[in-house]
Amino acid sequence: MREAVVGIDVGGTRVKATLVTPEGQVLAETVHPTPQSVGDRLGQVASEALTELTRKAGGPVRVLAVGLVVPGLVDDVNGIGVWSANLGWTDLDLRGSVAAHVEVPVAVGHDVRAGLLAEHRLGAAREADNVLFVPLGTGLAGAMLSRGRLVTGSRWTGEIGHVVVVPDGPLCGCGERGCLEALASAGAIGRRWSQATGLVGDAEEVARRAAGGEPEACRVWQEAVDALASVVAPVVAAAGTELVLVGGGLARAGDTLFEPLRAALRARLGRRADVAVEAAALGDRAGSLGAATIALDLVGR
Amino acid sequence: MREAVVGIDVGGTRVKATLVTPEGQVLAETVHPTPQSVGDRLGQVASEALTELTRKAGGPVRVLAVGLVVPGLVDDVNGIGVWSANLGWTDLDLRGSVAAHVEVPVAVGHDVRAGLLAEHRLGAAREADNVLFVPLGTGLAGAMLSRGRLVTGSRWTGEIGHVVVVPDGPLCGCGERGCLEALASAGAIGRRWSQATGLVGDAEEVARRAAGGEPEACRVWQEAVDALASVVAPVVAAAGTELVLVGGGLARAGDTLFEPLRAALRARLGRRADVAVEAAALGDRAGSLGAATIALDLVGR
Repeated sequence: MREAVVGIDVGGTRVKATLVTPEGQVLAETVHPTPQSVGDRLGQVASEALTELTRKAGGPVRVLAVGLVVPGLVDDVNGIGVWSANLGWTDLDLRGSVAAHVEVPVAVGHDVRAGLLAEHRLGAAREADNVLFVPLGTGLAGAMLSRGRLVTGSRWTGEIGHVVVVPDGPLCGCGERGCLEALASAGAIGRRWSQATGLVGDAEEVARRAAGGEPEACRVWQEAVDALASVVAPVVAAAGTELVLVGGGLARAGDTLFEPLRAALRARLGRRADVAVEAAALGDRAGSLGAATIALDLVGR
Repeated sequence: MREAVVGIDVGGTRVKATLVTPEGQVLAETVHPTPQSVGDRLGQVASEALTELTRKAGGPVRVLAVGLVVPGLVDDVNGIGVWSANLGWTDLDLRGSVAAHVEVPVAVGHDVRAGLLAEHRLGAAREADNVLFVPLGTGLAGAMLSRGRLVTGSRWTGEIGHVVVVPDGPLCGCGERGCLEALASAGAIGRRWSQATGLVGDAEEVARRAAGGEPEACRVWQEAVDALASVVAPVVAAAGTELVLVGGGLARAGDTLFEPLRAALRARLGRRADVAVEAAALGDRAGSLGAATIALDLVGR
């Protein structure tokens, strides 16, 4: 019988799940809207994903383990969802919630850190061991590899989105002003441009208009890039990062993002010419593939 | 016979050496001016330190290993001094230079990274596993522990002193403008204050005058603190750092430094209240004790 693991990425709007073999082959995938009060229903979400994925795989599959990844503050070691604004939980026993509903071992992780592991095994960071991964989506967090190992410290690890880069800057969802996330997340870019112009549009629209040279779009875009570089440069310097991997929706802007970002980082890193800035490869599947990766690690496969 | 290792810290102005037992007892120490062209004489420096230290220890000592630490860019794994402006070398085989003159194993490391290991074993970071160490001396570099392990990436690891924090700011020794080191190193603080006032004085003098409320001293001091916080905050956020350990000469300024630095970090880290900022404990012995630490690690003691 084929063997595989289930990776589940519970996000603010969607739950993505994937069934992956130890060799990295994806046998099936599912996407559903995130249910209301998902924190109370994680076991059900996991067992339904498991059933649906194995059915879709077309043929018998032995599931070895389940990996679950979530955003926010996560205690990877103890499997606790410490805090998530979007999903509305505090100190939730993620591992226990899922383990009660499935009959295989359960690994728990942070969506961005697990996503970086997946990029390292299967994606755009296969050749690099010293990596900073920054997915720019609705929110903004980061994850780091040093010599191929995840850097993890306190439960606040990776929360670069709430570093204040512009004192008294735009209001952030967290209540502070001038956080990186309030300037450089996809959500912030769309919002700031709409506020400035009175027009309706998302970050993709701003990217298109910035590429076309529209002044307000260029200003909002460049402020986002500068804010991002001011946070990324110190991290790259401290950790000896060789590859900055940018993911999330914004990475689809391509050179409209990467050219000014590379220039802004060069301006802040002086002589160093050894830092590459590249697009992530796994897109919005990084989380679920990352969840599968930590599940494989858990069972030594 | 007693057993011990020799730790040697070759700095821009002085060579400090120490003889330390596996239990952490210091049997002897020496300090000498750094000789001219020290890069060509490392083997001699090491063998003389070994002889002098064992003589001073008063009684027979079996030396198990030698540790050598240097500033600049260091390839710890291969034992190469990649580059040092102060010591004037490029791609120097540090390990080979020393190994040819001593009959025990030789460990090579970076002065700040090794210093952090010593602070972790013997000093102010004994209780913390997620640490950022920033010695503020003539120069400025950093080192990081994540879950008790050194974070090391490319050979540029730790070079936070050359992150540009103020575009078109004061000229740095590296040739760029506005580097952190050109604003927040002890050397820069004294220099900037002297330029502003026409008076002669070092960072210690500026600290004293800032504590007394003198406007020019306060301005230079606060600009140094803000520059430092703008680089430290992103690193703390990315790595989940719990303890920022400040060493070097500037740490002797005590609360004149620590109070505004804590405030500046709080202002940049939003809700996080879990980041301690403390003075390092080993002072200018961190490097030589760090060299002894990597020597002990090399021989499994």
